Amino acid sequence: MSIDNRRIGILGGGQLGRMLLQAGQLLNLDIRVLENDANSPAKQVSNKEHFQGAFNDADAIKSLAATVDILTVEIEHVNVAVLEEIEKTTNVQVSPSPSTIRVIQDKYTQKEHLMRHNIPVAKSIALVEQSPQSLRSVVDAHLNGVYPVMLKARKQAYDGKGNFLVKSAQDAENAVETLSKTAGSGGLYVEKLAPFVAEIAVMVVRSVGGNVVAYPAVETVHEDSVCSVVFAPLQTADSNVQQRAQDVATNAISTFSGAGVFGVEMFLLADGGFGALEKEPLINRPLSGQILLNEIAPRPHNSGHYTIEACATSQYANHLRAILDLPLGATDLVVPYAGMINLLGRNDGSEEGVLKLARKALEIPGAHVHLYGKAGCRKGRKMGHITIVGESSHAVHKSIDELSALLPPSDSRVKENPLAHIASLLPSPFRKSDTTSNPANPLVSVVMGSDSDLKVMRAAAEVLKDFGVPYELSIVSAHRTPDRMMQFAQSAASRGVRCIIAGAGGAAHLPGMVAAMTPLPVIGVPVKGSSLDGVDSLHSIVQMPRGIPVATVAINGGLNAGLLAVRVISAGMPRLLDSLNQYKRGLEEEVYAKIDKMEAVTWEEYKGL
Amino acid sequence: MSIDNRRIGILGGGQLGRMLLQAGQLLNLDIRVLENDANSPAKQVSNKEHFQGAFNDADAIKSLAATVDILTVEIEHVNVAVLEEIEKTTNVQVSPSPSTIRVIQDKYTQKEHLMRHNIPVAKSIALVEQSPQSLRSVVDAHLNGVYPVMLKARKQAYDGKGNFLVKSAQDAENAVETLSKTAGSGGLYVEKLAPFVAEIAVMVVRSVGGNVVAYPAVETVHEDSVCSVVFAPLQTADSNVQQRAQDVATNAISTFSGAGVFGVEMFLLADGGFGALEKEPLINRPLSGQILLNEIAPRPHNSGHYTIEACATSQYANHLRAILDLPLGATDLVVPYAGMINLLGRNDGSEEGVLKLARKALEIPGAHVHLYGKAGCRKGRKMGHITIVGESSHAVHKSIDELSALLPPSDSRVKENPLAHIASLLPSPFRKSDTTSNPANPLVSVVMGSDSDLKVMRAAAEVLKDFGVPYELSIVSAHRTPDRMMQFAQSAASRGVRCIIAGAGGAAHLPGMVAAMTPLPVIGVPVKGSSLDGVDSLHSIVQMPRGIPVATVAINGGLNAGLLAVRVISAGMPRLLDSLNQYKRGLEEEVYAKIDKMEAVTWEEYKGL
Repeated sequence: MSIDNRRIGILGGGQLGRMLLQAGQLLNLDIRVLENDANSPAKQVSNKEHFQGAFNDADAIKSLAATVDILTVEIEHVNVAVLEEIEKTTNVQVSPSPSTIRVIQDKYTQKEHLMRHNIPVAKSIALVEQSPQSLRSVVDAHLNGVYPVMLKARKQAYDGKGNFLVKSAQDAENAVETLSKTAGSGGLYVEKLAPFVAEIAVMVVRSVGGNVVAYPAVETVHEDSVCSVVFAPLQTADSNVQQRAQDVATNAISTFSGAGVFGVEMFLLADGGFGALEKEPLINRPLSGQILLNEIAPRPHNSGHYTIEACATSQYANHLRAILDLPLGATDLVVPYAGMINLLGRNDGSEEGVLKLARKALEIPGAHVHLYGKAGCRKGRKMGHITIVGESSHAVHKSIDELSALLPPSDSRVKENPLAHIASLLPSPFRKSDTTSNPANPLVSVVMGSDSDLKVMRAAAEVLKDFGVPYELSIVSAHRTPDRMMQFAQSAASRGVRCIIAGAGGAAHLPGMVAAMTPLPVIGVPVKGSSLDGVDSLHSIVQMPRGIPVATVAINGGLNAGLLAVRVISAGMPRLLDSLNQYKRGLEEEVYAKIDKMEAVTWEEYKGL
Repeated sequence: MSIDNRRIGILGGGQLGRMLLQAGQLLNLDIRVLENDANSPAKQVSNKEHFQGAFNDADAIKSLAATVDILTVEIEHVNVAVLEEIEKTTNVQVSPSPSTIRVIQDKYTQKEHLMRHNIPVAKSIALVEQSPQSLRSVVDAHLNGVYPVMLKARKQAYDGKGNFLVKSAQDAENAVETLSKTAGSGGLYVEKLAPFVAEIAVMVVRSVGGNVVAYPAVETVHEDSVCSVVFAPLQTADSNVQQRAQDVATNAISTFSGAGVFGVEMFLLADGGFGALEKEPLINRPLSGQILLNEIAPRPHNSGHYTIEACATSQYANHLRAILDLPLGATDLVVPYAGMINLLGRNDGSEEGVLKLARKALEIPGAHVHLYGKAGCRKGRKMGHITIVGESSHAVHKSIDELSALLPPSDSRVKENPLAHIASLLPSPFRKSDTTSNPANPLVSVVMGSDSDLKVMRAAAEVLKDFGVPYELSIVSAHRTPDRMMQFAQSAASRGVRCIIAGAGGAAHLPGMVAAMTPLPVIGVPVKGSSLDGVDSLHSIVQMPRGIPVATVAINGGLNAGLLAVRVISAGMPRLLDSLNQYKRGLEEEVYAKIDKMEAVTWEEYKGL
C-alpha cells in the first residue's frame, strides 16, 4: 500500500538520495537509484533492484527511465541532453525540468538568467578565454581594476571546488591555473566581492501544480566554501530580513520552470550595496542590508538538512510531494531553534575524527546523528551531519560549540566563535558579549531608563541568572535616547528575545513605549523616585491605553519582574516550570524556618532568622 | 563508518523492526532481520542479507545468532528456550534478557511477578482448568461473585486478542470457548475490572549499563482493545499524575533484568481504588486516582510511535542505544503536544479506507504519515500510523478529530469525541465543553471573583476569541470559594493551561492567591468598584510580596489583559506574533483615520469618527 503508485527514479545515490529514499519509505513510495557504486548511501536503505551506472551515462539514464514514471536528481551535474530527450520522446516526467538544470549547471549562465529577471546578484562577467590576461582585462574594464575579486569556474563547481579569491593582479596566473586544474576547461567568470555580514539560505519548494512554499531563512557558516554549520531560523536586528530573504528566493525560483525543492544561497550585506570590504560598525543604526543571491541548487540542499527534525515537513518529504503533485507540507519550524554541523572527512583520512563528534553528540540532548554509510573518509568528504534542536538559540549554540571544540584548530568548522558571527547582526551595544550573563542571543532583555535604576533592576538579572535564562542588560532611556529605544524595541523579537523587562522611575515612559513597538510581552517595573513614593511611576506604567498592555509589577519589584519573565518564557521551556515549583517550595521553607525560630525563642526574643 | 561495529539481529521483521532499522541507519548500524516474509516491512528498508524463518524457529534463530553480536526482539512471543541456550552457550548478548521475556510472555506470570514486587495491579487469579466451571468458582471464591470481570488468555495474547469481558455467570461458556479458539490452551486467568478514567502508558528504557530513563506519560485510547489513538503528554487536573505514572513504570521495569525499551500500559482510576464501575462525578475534589499497571511489552510499543517526531530521541533510537550500551538519549518532548492515530485495516479489506486518512493527513500541518509497506489490508491489521505535532493540545485534537471523521461510524477509532475523554480528567466546571470558546483543553484561563466582573473581563475573552486562542472562562472567588480557587490554581499547569487572567475588585485577592499556587504567569485585572475608583484593587493586585509576581494591567483593563495573554503565549506559537503585528497596524490605522477626519471637518466640527 502506497500513497502514490508511480515509480520514481533518482540520478545519483549519495546522501541526498539516501535521505530522499528514507522520506519516501514513510509513504511507501517505489524509488530506484542510478549510481555507479552498488553499495552507495542511497542503495543501502532499500531492498529494491537499483541501477548501476554514472548519473551522466546516457544509456544508464535511459535504462532507469524505462522503468519509472518520474525522474529526479540529487545532483545538478547530470547529462541534461539525455534528460531533454527523455522529456521529449517519452511519457516520463522529469522534475526539475531539464531546461532549469541546464541553466543552473553553468553558474555564469545562471547569473545572467537571474540578472535578466532583476534578481539581485553580485556583478559577474565571463572571461573571453581561460587565461590570466583575460581575467586582468575583465577586472580593469568592468570593476575599475579593483581587487580582490572572486574567480569562479562556470561548470562542475560545488562545495567550493571552483572558487578562487584573487587578491591582486599578480594572483591571476595562479588563480586561472588552479581553477583549470580542478574544474577543467568549462570557462571562468569574475564576480565582484559581496561584503556580506552573513550567508543565508532559503529552501523553496514548487509542486508540479505550481504551488510554492518557502522554508525559513537560515544562517549558513562556510569553511573553505563548504557549508559547515547552519542555524535556523536566521535571527537579525532587522525584523524584515526573514521575509525579504524568502521573497528573493521565491522570486528567483519563479523564473525557472519545473517542480521540486531548490536550495537558494544568498549574501546578507551590511550596507545595502557595495561598500568597502571592511565590515562597518553598525552602531546606532538599524541593519537594513541588501540581499544578493549567490547560487541555486535544483535539489535538496545541505542547508536544509535541519528540516528533518526541526520543521513540520522535511525538504526531502516536500521534494517528493512536489514532484508527485501531492499537497505540499507545512514548512514552519516546530521547535524553537535548530543547528546543524557537517561531519567532514579529516586530513588524516581516519574515521576517528568524525566519530569523536558523533559519539559526543549522543550525549547532547536534542542532538540527532546522521551517518551516511560512506566507506572512505578522505579530507572534506561529507560523511554525515548532526542536527541539534533546542529550546533557545543560546542552548543550541552552546551545543554546537561543544562539538566544534572537538575539532583540531586547523580543521575548525567555525573559524571563530559562531556567536561572534550572529552577534555582528545585532545593533550595538546589544551586539556582542561572550559571557553567559550578557550573551549574544538572549531570551530576556532587561533595560532601564537610567543607571540609577540598576539597584532595583539587578534583582531581575540575578533571578534570570539563577534560573539559567540567557539575558542581556543595558540602559535605554525613552526621553534621552529615543532612537536607541525604537531600535531596541523593534529589533527584539527578530533577534530571538521572548520577553522584555523595562524599569523606569518618575514619568516612567520606557515600558509603555517599548510595548508600543514590539509584539513581545513587556514587564514594567516602577522604580521609586525621590518624591511621590513611586506611585507616579506605578501609574505611568500600569495605566496604559487600550491595545498596548504592560505587565506591571510592584514598585521596586525587580525580583518579581525577573520571576515573572521566567514564568512567561516557561511556556516554551517546560524545565523552567520545575525550577519555579522548586523556588516556590524554597519560599515556603523560608517561612517555616521563621515559624520554628519564633516558636523556639518566643516572639518577645525574636529578632529575625 | 558506524557509531558501533557490533552486528545486531532482530527476531521479527514487522513495522517495529522496520522503525528500528530506520533508526539504526542514522548511526549506520549493521542490523539483520529474521522473518518468514522475504519482503517484510523491516527487510524493505535495507539492502542487507536478511534471514528467512519464523521468530520461534530454533534453527533459524541459531543461524541468525551465529552472524551477530547482539540479539533483540520486536515481539515477545519468541522461542525463549533457544534464546536462553544462546545466552548460556555463546558470546551473543540477548537483550532484553530471555528470563524477562519468559515472565512477560505469560500474562498471569507477569501479574504474579508484579504483585510479588508490590507493583499495583488489578487483582488476578489463574483458572485451575480452562473451563466455565473453573471461571465461575474463581469469581465466587475470590471476587465475591461480582461480575463483570475480565477473562484473559495467559499466552499469545496481544492487540486485545485474548481478552473477554464476562458480564455475568451465564457468559462463562461463551467466554472460555472464544478465548480457547483465539489463544489456544495456554491457560486463562480472571482479572478484576479496573474502573479507569483513562488508559495511560510510559515507555521506559534501560541500558546494558543500568541507566534508566522514562518518556512522558501519555494517554492511550483503545478500540476493541487495540491501541488506536495516543495523546502526548497526558494532561490531568492532578499535577502529580505524570510523575506517579513514570514512577510506577520505572519501578516495574527495575524488577526485571536486561536492556532495551519497555512499553508499560497502565490504568488511571478515578477513585483511588475499586469503587463502582460508574465514573463518579469529580465535582469539587481534585482527581487523585490510583494507577494500576496493566501490562508490559519488552520492546518498542505502539504507544511510543509518537516519540519519532515529538521527542528528543525516539523509542527506536533509544532501544538501540540501550542494547549497545551507548549513552541514552533525552526523552523530553521537543514540541508542545502530539497525537498519534493508527491506520488499521478495514472490514472491506480494501486499501481505500486507510489511504483516505493518509491522503487527508498530507493536508494537515505537522502531520507525519507512516506506511509500513504491508501488502494485505485485512481488518484490524496495523497498516501504518499518523503522528501530528502541534502548538497546543487543542490544535492536535482538532486535527485528530478531522481524521477520525473520515472513518465510518462502525469503525471509528475514538468512540466518542476524544475531548470528552480528556475532559473527564478535569475538575468541574472546567470539565467539559465542546464549543471552541470554552474548550476542554484551553491555553488561557480567564477567571473572575464575581459575575459583576464579567462586564470588564468579557473584553479579555473577546480578544482571545479574535486571536483564535483556546480559552476557558468562569467564576472563581478567593473569599467565597477558596477550595475551588486552590483546585483551579493547582491544576492549571498540568491541564495544559499556559497563562491565567484573573480579575477582581475591592480587596482583589484572586490574582495574587492564584499566583501563589501555580508556576504559570498570572495577569491581574483590577476591576473598579463603587468606591476608591479601583485604586484599592490596583494596589491589592500589583503590590505583591517578594517571590510571587502578578502581571498587573490598568484598572478595568480586560482588553489589555487578553492582549497580554496573547503576547505571553506567543513564545510557543510564533504565528501569534504576526497576528499581534497586524493588530498593532490596525491601531495605527484607526488613529490615522481620525487624523484624516479631523483635517477634513476641522477640529471645531469634529465629533469623533
